[in-house]
Amino acid sequence: MMSSRIAGDPIVDVHTHMYPPSYVKIMEDRNEIPMVRRFPGSQDPRLILLPSEVESMKSDPEGKSKVPGRPLTKHYASLDQKIHFMDTHKIAISVISLANPWFDFLDPAEAGPIADSVNDEFSKMCTKYPGRLFFFAALPLCASAEMIRNSIDHALSLPYCRGFIMGTSGKGKGMDDPEMVPILQHIKENMVFLHPHYGLPNEVYGPRAEEYGHVLPLALGFPMETTICVARMYLSGVFDKCPSLRLLLAHSGGTLPFLAGRIESCIVHDGHLLKEGRLKNRRTIWDVLNQQIYLDAVIYSDVGLRAAVLAGGVDRVMFGTDHPFFPPLETDEQGEWESVTLNVTSVNYALPNQQQVKQVLGGNAVNILKLERIGKEIVAA
Amino acid sequence: MMSSRIAGDPIVDVHTHMYPPSYVKIMEDRNEIPMVRRFPGSQDPRLILLPSEVESMKSDPEGKSKVPGRPLTKHYASLDQKIHFMDTHKIAISVISLANPWFDFLDPAEAGPIADSVNDEFSKMCTKYPGRLFFFAALPLCASAEMIRNSIDHALSLPYCRGFIMGTSGKGKGMDDPEMVPILQHIKENMVFLHPHYGLPNEVYGPRAEEYGHVLPLALGFPMETTICVARMYLSGVFDKCPSLRLLLAHSGGTLPFLAGRIESCIVHDGHLLKEGRLKNRRTIWDVLNQQIYLDAVIYSDVGLRAAVLAGGVDRVMFGTDHPFFPPLETDEQGEWESVTLNVTSVNYALPNQQQVKQVLGGNAVNILKLERIGKEIVAA
Repeated sequence: MMSSRIAGDPIVDVHTHMYPPSYVKIMEDRNEIPMVRRFPGSQDPRLILLPSEVESMKSDPEGKSKVPGRPLTKHYASLDQKIHFMDTHKIAISVISLANPWFDFLDPAEAGPIADSVNDEFSKMCTKYPGRLFFFAALPLCASAEMIRNSIDHALSLPYCRGFIMGTSGKGKGMDDPEMVPILQHIKENMVFLHPHYGLPNEVYGPRAEEYGHVLPLALGFPMETTICVARMYLSGVFDKCPSLRLLLAHSGGTLPFLAGRIESCIVHDGHLLKEGRLKNRRTIWDVLNQQIYLDAVIYSDVGLRAAVLAGGVDRVMFGTDHPFFPPLETDEQGEWESVTLNVTSVNYALPNQQQVKQVLGGNAVNILKLERIGKEIVAA
Repeated sequence: MMSSRIAGDPIVDVHTHMYPPSYVKIMEDRNEIPMVRRFPGSQDPRLILLPSEVESMKSDPEGKSKVPGRPLTKHYASLDQKIHFMDTHKIAISVISLANPWFDFLDPAEAGPIADSVNDEFSKMCTKYPGRLFFFAALPLCASAEMIRNSIDHALSLPYCRGFIMGTSGKGKGMDDPEMVPILQHIKENMVFLHPHYGLPNEVYGPRAEEYGHVLPLALGFPMETTICVARMYLSGVFDKCPSLRLLLAHSGGTLPFLAGRIESCIVHDGHLLKEGRLKNRRTIWDVLNQQIYLDAVIYSDVGLRAAVLAGGVDRVMFGTDHPFFPPLETDEQGEWESVTLNVTSVNYALPNQQQVKQVLGGNAVNILKLERIGKEIVAA
């Protein structure tokens, strides 16, 4: 393990996931999707998140994909591994978060205490590496409003909590569901990290999708899901009803920076919205992008990153890795990850000066997520 | 009607639609969707393209949307109106094309001759304004391979034909359907203008989508459909199997410029594609963007346009209007259209010098689509 002294301009990773051991245990004990299962001949247990992952195996007569889901390597649950990954990539601080499917599948009556205990586990992990780890808590959104409020309060009482990660489906009906408004209001100005999960229906990828591995749902389904979600929030007035809401969008906003102009044009040309009187005295989607939305820099190209910075503002874009997803296939997982270097390179290439590079790689996250309790120097293990 | 003398640096519109009278007649004679219908109290006949347009009316108990579909104003079928629109916006040349749903719905046995006659009608329209109008022909893709080949040959014999407009569904199974390969090969290096039609399944927009007018399917569904289509083509190897194929993507590529980096990253991190040996000796999606793909500039923002130009190259992006869609709601339809000025302004704002502005507004289209038979001056009516 590399030893490094990181000073001055820390790299901060705001998009980095873990499934802590207690959460893996919940998934192992389940008999239906989502679940974790072991298969003969497969080294790691497999994380099966979506029915389509099993369906594609069933419809594979040649048995090319012998086991469903993805391998749950130690990168998902081991804190030592997370710290090693951070050291390898000179990441000073990570804001870790539970990955999908969060607590969507839990029994609503039990979801609150389970979420609280998983958030407690995140908090303990942060305590082990003071100043190097913070976390976005996950909420029992399937539970009652009161239970959700209690879990919000509980998480905010934990010293390293810096907001909440949330899937696009909210309580099940999307983030434009009126029932989400009081929840988002209760979160106040704490960051909500909006992350995709369900993607698009498989039918949109056509009859030959399986030949393309997981490329279409991961590369296109996820960002499209995020874009649809945030457009629905905008159109339903969530940003006005929750003026203190701050929303961090995964994957540089899905496709929002690129499509914001088209969204605005479709709005001003929509007869229904005109008739309803909804075109006047309105903040545009550009206004909301610059007032309440933040973007991560997980976009893997300078083209996308430039659009994200232009749309959101260079002070609102924050580096991320999406670790432990997208491990290298042909090099050692303990070494450098191409998925990370692609994003570091994009930031360096897209931005005009080192000041902006430093902002996006870490300075913005320190300011926006109030990580300033970090001392001037961090000694990595 | 404005009279103008356009010289030197023509503005060329490569994305502009018409439903010529013979096509409207076909749609009027139909008893199922897609069709054209008149409704009491509605000034123009209504064009109903998708079942969802009728469904949304049924589920509207307050009867806010009294008639389904969109008004088929004279902007759709009148050539005089098209020329007036061009003059108003100083557009010297338009490459007109049939809009969706093209000929998808025809009886396969009759589709060939009907397509040929509609293409003939386009050709005649171009002849009326020599040098100011060219067209992309539409193909009877539901017909037999032989009939499709004959229609390709017929269209290419028409002097103002500059390629073909095609929906993302191809012959019904998508553009990655192996049956599309010989068709695309037969088209040779003539441009294929790929245009969305079916969008995404309504369920992705959630239970409150109707409150948002047509914004979600138009602003997000269309570009996402295009992106999925071109990613499927790329992953199935269509660009390698059809090396002379040139593809013009509607709406600046849907979301392709923004997501190209993520697509590439998902490909190099896909275990299935690695196992199949498909990661080696491969042109990247960036290569294909710079070799076989062209983008229109219908993106309504400088943020999106910059990404399109960075991804595709400034010599491969071509101005378009999407006329007669997105008419102004609150100003005279005979005057300037905001949907057009948004795109002109974006080009002017995004590009660093007048040379590049002229390229994107018209020079590229003249070169790429071989419109050079135009004299140095065009006198508009």
